[in-house]
Amino acid sequence: MAQADLKNRIRSDYKFQLEYRTRWSDNDMYDHMNNSIYYFLFDSIVNTYLIERCALNPPTSDRIGLVVHSHCDYFSPVGFPAVVDLALRVNKLGKSSVTYEIGVFERGEDSVKVVGEFVHVFVDRNNRKPRADGMGPGLREGLERILSTSKSKL
Amino acid sequence: MAQADLKNRIRSDYKFQLEYRTRWSDNDMYDHMNNSIYYFLFDSIVNTYLIERCALNPPTSDRIGLVVHSHCDYFSPVGFPAVVDLALRVNKLGKSSVTYEIGVFERGEDSVKVVGEFVHVFVDRNNRKPRADGMGPGLREGLERILSTSKSKL
Amino acid sequence: MAQADLKNRIRSDYKFQLEYRTRWSDNDMYDHMNNSIYYFLFDSIVNTYLIERCALNPPTSDRIGLVVHSHCDYFSPVGFPAVVDLALRVNKLGKSSVTYEIGVFERGEDSVKVVGEFVHVFVDRNNRKPRADGMGPGLREGLERILSTSKSKL
Amino acid sequence: MAQADLKNRIRSDYKFQLEYRTRWSDNDMYDHMNNSIYYFLFDSIVNTYLIERCALNPPTSDRIGLVVHSHCDYFSPVGFPAVVDLALRVNKLGKSSVTYEIGVFERGEDSVKVVGEFVHVFVDRNNRKPRADGMGPGLREGLERILSTSKSKL
Repeated sequence: MAQADLKNRIRSDYKFQLEYRTRWSDNDMYDHMNNSIYYFLFDSIVNTYLIERCALNPPTSDRIGLVVHSHCDYFSPVGFPAVVDLALRVNKLGKSSVTYEIGVFERGEDSVKVVGEFVHVFVDRNNRKPRADGMGPGLREGLERILSTSKSKL
Repeated sequence: MAQADLKNRIRSDYKFQLEYRTRWSDNDMYDHMNNSIYYFLFDSIVNTYLIERCALNPPTSDRIGLVVHSHCDYFSPVGFPAVVDLALRVNKLGKSSVTYEIGVFERGEDSVKVVGEFVHVFVDRNNRKPRADGMGPGLREGLERILSTSKSKL
Repeated sequence: MAQADLKNRIRSDYKFQLEYRTRWSDNDMYDHMNNSIYYFLFDSIVNTYLIERCALNPPTSDRIGLVVHSHCDYFSPVGFPAVVDLALRVNKLGKSSVTYEIGVFERGEDSVKVVGEFVHVFVDRNNRKPRADGMGPGLREGLERILSTSKSKL
Repeated sequence: MAQADLKNRIRSDYKFQLEYRTRWSDNDMYDHMNNSIYYFLFDSIVNTYLIERCALNPPTSDRIGLVVHSHCDYFSPVGFPAVVDLALRVNKLGKSSVTYEIGVFERGEDSVKVVGEFVHVFVDRNNRKPRADGMGPGLREGLERILSTSKSKL
């Protein structure tokens, strides 16, 4: 999906949202949130969804999600002490892998600030390889509930 | 103040509160929030208060707050994806310096998890030394509003 | 450039290197460096290069670099307390923008662990827009010294 | 130990050292390393020592170290891209607990920038309580090697 289209993302393009406060240390010397911090936020909404809606238990689950690719486009800055709305959808669901898209909005503003994607491959906790049965039914059902059915994939 | 007393802190011992979501990366390998992360949270509630209630503007204010001391007692763990209530009070207010106390509570629980203090010295932005007029009236008035008048100092 | 080719990156494909120690907090609950941390490392080698070799002074320079895009492919894990070699090259140099590529190697190992790119647009510090003269000669000369002349772009 | 004395710490007051590069994101908006980052560095030298010299293996060891208290005095600032020398000693060694002291020096400078202490209680990995045999002989022997025998405790 072209950057120009991503820039038009709105909150209702996403299926799950969480409100997050920024932290003092998120801002770098240029008085805005450091580019790397957005990936911390992406990880946070995704893992909250996996734990609360897909029954993932990171310390004990037999499958864990490893990130194999991530990317992000930055359209306009956000700075501490802003409160942001993180918004999540699944763009692609494979046998063992899932592609998430996350949009970052600032409370009280409509236009999207940042859009990113990342890919989890679910692997066996012990040997860290995909399993014959892929991600398994529990994760799949949870992720299907936020799978985007529109054509508007990245 | 003895550790045993600090352990009895409740939300109403504090004057300003903010709710913060934890992040995936806050947890370390032991499945709980890393001890250092609490200091990020302390900085975040204090600077939110300074910006929103005391008119501090970090990129331009003529005075800035430098941390000269910090400490923290950890009573029980918090882990992602918990939501925490940060609670702030001022324990001591000098001419140029202020001692903050922050309590960390978990949403839905009464007992305090962690209590810390840190000391800001307000200095001139350019020469980084305290000014003859100390922190100035704007900061002082804001900080006095959350100054604890009880005897229960750390 | 295809992922398969990126996986074959070696240290000599890059023009500037720095050794970095990992930190305890870099590891997440899965006992390896969290995917977001690599972006901190990318920022660190790039800004060290800009400061030490291109005369950038972040608190005062008239131009600053804003990140507009970043991405990363993760081939194999690194974990604390490993020491990593960060390796930097410039893949593309425009009038105001630059595309960096960073490879992450582990001390004592040949195969690359992670490869990422990010794009800086150099803008005027005050209005945060590109200037008529682009990034200016000082930055350009420094960045040309690590510009990859090979065909092996991402 | 009084702050005035801590300020006089020199590298040879410590028994184990590691060199660490600072990261771009360590600096906050005031162009120096954020106060919280030092605690990340403390954790890093301590856990490197525990892993490399005391046979701790964080994902599997039967005992793990929980931080119950930490504090830090900040004497003068350090900023990215400085390289720092972290220096470690043990000030107190109990049955299950240990008090570490860490000094932070900047490469090429003699005076100490920051001094902190923190307390680990070694507990059983599963029930998270101290064990009848305390920290056990492996950890104890490793920690005794950097136990300060001088009177100059904090």
